Amino acid sequence: MPKGTTMPLFRIAELEIDPVQLDAYRGFVTEQIDAAVTSEPGVLMLYAVAIAGRPDHIRVVEVYADQAAYEAHLRAPHFLKYKSGTVGMVRSLRLVETDPIILRAKGDENSN
Amino acid sequence: MPKGTTMPLFRIAELEIDPVQLDAYRGFVTEQIDAAVTSEPGVLMLYAVAIAGRPDHIRVVEVYADQAAYEAHLRAPHFLKYKSGTVGMVRSLRLVETDPIILRAKGDENSN
Repeated sequence: MPKGTTMPLFRIAELEIDPVQLDAYRGFVTEQIDAAVTSEPGVLMLYAVAIAGRPDHIRVVEVYADQAAYEAHLRAPHFLKYKSGTVGMVRSLRLVETDPIILRAKGDENSN
Repeated sequence: MPKGTTMPLFRIAELEIDPVQLDAYRGFVTEQIDAAVTSEPGVLMLYAVAIAGRPDHIRVVEVYADQAAYEAHLRAPHFLKYKSGTVGMVRSLRLVETDPIILRAKGDENSN
């Protein structure tokens, strides 16, 4: 995790998924997030959650070290597999770009 | 940070702030987040960001170890100071409860 004083690229993706294909979508997103955070040095955090009571409404909270790390992620094989595999499952996608104010997490003080 | 296999309480707060009081609000939220993550063992992560181009539209991504940790946070002096100090600044507040699907962050593998 970055120190609170660093300001990485922080984004929230808001998705609506075809309910009939929800289990398959969850499999794709889980696999790609696991691979991205494990193998890509610039992918700092990916959290996928469903809105309570609306399992087809997904939010993905995304933190990348910088713009280059994000662009590298878009070219990574696990991300391309996710995008092509879920193209018929995603009913809507809104990418909410943000400007960080303060980012604090347990363990920040021990990170580099 | 929790391991990906644990499923802590994860919430997104969506706020709209009075633009005239935005600098003051940012001061309050920064102080309370810094204090909460530093001093409360069950407050795992608090990220405050503004929507790009709409600095008065704030999102706070919140991760607590469990429900008890969240309730303890609501009683903490820094949170009460934030709530009372910003009561006239917050135009709207929507608390989006979520069900985690997958939570992955750098350094998870080293956490307890």
